[in-house]
Amino acid sequence: MDISAYMSQLGAQARSASRIIARANTQTKNAALQAIHDAMVAHRSKIIAANTCDVDAGRANDLDPALLDRLQLNDERFDGMLEGLRQVIALPDPIGEMTDFTYRPSGIQLGKMRVPLGVIGIIYESRPNVTLEAASLCLKSGNAAILRGGSEALHSNQAIAMAISAGLVNAGLPASVVQVVETTDRAAVGALITDSEHVDVIVPRGGKGLIERITREARVPVIKHLDGNCHVFIDRDADQAKAGRIALNAKTHRYGVCNAMETLLIDAPIAAKLLPALADAFNSKGVELRGCEKTCAILPTILAATEADWFTEYLAPVLAIKVVNDLSEAIDHINHYGSHHTDVIVTEHYSRGRRFLAEVDSSSVMINASTRFADGFEYGLGAEIGISTDKIHARGPVGLEGLTSQKWIVFGDGQIRQ
Amino acid sequence: MDISAYMSQLGAQARSASRIIARANTQTKNAALQAIHDAMVAHRSKIIAANTCDVDAGRANDLDPALLDRLQLNDERFDGMLEGLRQVIALPDPIGEMTDFTYRPSGIQLGKMRVPLGVIGIIYESRPNVTLEAASLCLKSGNAAILRGGSEALHSNQAIAMAISAGLVNAGLPASVVQVVETTDRAAVGALITDSEHVDVIVPRGGKGLIERITREARVPVIKHLDGNCHVFIDRDADQAKAGRIALNAKTHRYGVCNAMETLLIDAPIAAKLLPALADAFNSKGVELRGCEKTCAILPTILAATEADWFTEYLAPVLAIKVVNDLSEAIDHINHYGSHHTDVIVTEHYSRGRRFLAEVDSSSVMINASTRFADGFEYGLGAEIGISTDKIHARGPVGLEGLTSQKWIVFGDGQIRQ
Repeated sequence: MDISAYMSQLGAQARSASRIIARANTQTKNAALQAIHDAMVAHRSKIIAANTCDVDAGRANDLDPALLDRLQLNDERFDGMLEGLRQVIALPDPIGEMTDFTYRPSGIQLGKMRVPLGVIGIIYESRPNVTLEAASLCLKSGNAAILRGGSEALHSNQAIAMAISAGLVNAGLPASVVQVVETTDRAAVGALITDSEHVDVIVPRGGKGLIERITREARVPVIKHLDGNCHVFIDRDADQAKAGRIALNAKTHRYGVCNAMETLLIDAPIAAKLLPALADAFNSKGVELRGCEKTCAILPTILAATEADWFTEYLAPVLAIKVVNDLSEAIDHINHYGSHHTDVIVTEHYSRGRRFLAEVDSSSVMINASTRFADGFEYGLGAEIGISTDKIHARGPVGLEGLTSQKWIVFGDGQIRQ
Repeated sequence: MDISAYMSQLGAQARSASRIIARANTQTKNAALQAIHDAMVAHRSKIIAANTCDVDAGRANDLDPALLDRLQLNDERFDGMLEGLRQVIALPDPIGEMTDFTYRPSGIQLGKMRVPLGVIGIIYESRPNVTLEAASLCLKSGNAAILRGGSEALHSNQAIAMAISAGLVNAGLPASVVQVVETTDRAAVGALITDSEHVDVIVPRGGKGLIERITREARVPVIKHLDGNCHVFIDRDADQAKAGRIALNAKTHRYGVCNAMETLLIDAPIAAKLLPALADAFNSKGVELRGCEKTCAILPTILAATEADWFTEYLAPVLAIKVVNDLSEAIDHINHYGSHHTDVIVTEHYSRGRRFLAEVDSSSVMINASTRFADGFEYGLGAEIGISTDKIHARGPVGLEGLTSQKWIVFGDGQIRQ
């Protein structure tokens, strides 16, 4: 198989399909999503069988148990996929929105129209439900998609792709609106991320290694999500009940997620009073604590944190704790060691809260709420294609709007430039 | 000189200055811009002398006359720079705008805050006025800037940089908010565009060769401007007086600009009637015409266009003309051969105008107005750092807002995720 020719053909087909899906109206796009939903239901046993085949192969190949778990499509997860699809149908269509029209001194009337990006390449690892999720978000936002899942999920992804194609065709749209790459050759990824003629943006979903490789090699813009090294800072004027509740939730609600707290910062004047109770609460959840020198002076039984700890996204029941002298030190620590994902201040002090909001350089900045709220569903985006740690284009959870762009519209009556 | 160490030091200084300028209020930023203005006035003769030195050297080195012209800072251009600076002072400050606040079912209140991008690297060619323009736009939008001008303008840029530094320091801001790279070694560009630790976005301004090289080698997101292959389509229901006026203005108002028309598309039913008069008008301006087969049948004296003509941005008094069968063929031609910059339909037909707006995939799409309006000043952006032909982040003219991003803000009362 000539991978380069194959990928270039997928690209050309996607570009051509993108013109058609870009001008499809909301009714047509929703009808296609509903037809995909119905095809998923009709093909359910076939898809589950294909998935079982992937899971068996994964087990035989000693796939990491966490990956094996993510690969598996049980009944509950299948129902979750269908529910997600229905939610995307219910979301408002972002395309065609016209805003900000004003008359300019020349007499032209200027505004903006929201339009699809064009062709979106999604590269992801083992979870096969991403195939349906990504396809439905791209379709609803008027984009064509090229999906490249992990080799360990190939049969599952192909079975889901068949249902998607059936739905698209059923609704009178070309099957090439959503194409799943049918080779596990890694050269296909290289071809996709450098095909700037046919691909407008790449969204990688997976581990840091995958994303770093793609960012390094891509010639197409990438909406990337690196790590989530999130902080909670408990200010001296925090409501201590809120502080305890938020810190515990941010760390222990789920460990393996990017919006979990990884470092707790605590204001010096309240550290001695607050830390023992907090440590007890974390201990009772089995969280390992690693503290700065001042923290260890208050909690002598815990481990000492090293410089590396402040940079680390544990994704595990481990928490670094640092006592800071004041708000300034907290902000500096977060901006230096953090990953600009989600950071929280717990305080009742108006001016310090306001300063934290303005100066912390993260995609989500919160006062008196858990980091765990940084999520497409919690933010009402309906679904998310990813969480961007980039600053340009889309920051934080990326929903339908992140898959669109705005073009300028000019209405005139024959105006010319003088 | 160790270029890599030097650039990394500039980067670190910029990153640190970016934290300070990001939290500077509007008054401080405007005071700094005014102080830079006053320093420019005070250093005027020194800057002009430095420029004369560059121009003399350019002449001695047989610099291309067009580049030599762009390099020159005469009195009129110097006054233009000062006027531009005063306009930037008068622009509203985009930073801190908070929008879209709503309560979510969890009780958190969610919205967005407009924030600077951080550190912006600008790489440009001979025009020294870009130094001041880019510096003032970055400063007003709360960003630190690293500016790398062409080697032929080094003395001019350094003299302007001294005025900028003097102004910044005078207003109590660090001089490193705006740094001009003081080496002409091309390795400095390579270091700048790969320093993703210190630089958030690169804006290249210059020829296609420069921009393609930067896009290829950058590891930092690039807001790029490639070519402007703009079209005017005259629909069968065009007002013919408007059509003639717009076509002539779009081509002949200025030739060497990216928003000039390069191909005229004309609807078949009106081609025979309209083309002779249009050809006369273009001939009288000295514009060379190149036509498709049908055009040449109507205008037998003109050259035949080749396939390459449809892709070409002439930036010169040359115009390609094609007769199309209908709106669909016009849209397909524009989307295939165009550069997605600015395209116009001249029509009085409601539905065809509406379809053109929706389906032409360009950063500016216009009805009954000249392509020449696609410009930061005409759009009221005050000034532009460039015109983006990208689809992500900023599309079309990029003003202050294009140098900003939005972060999510969450206000809570102690909410945790259930």
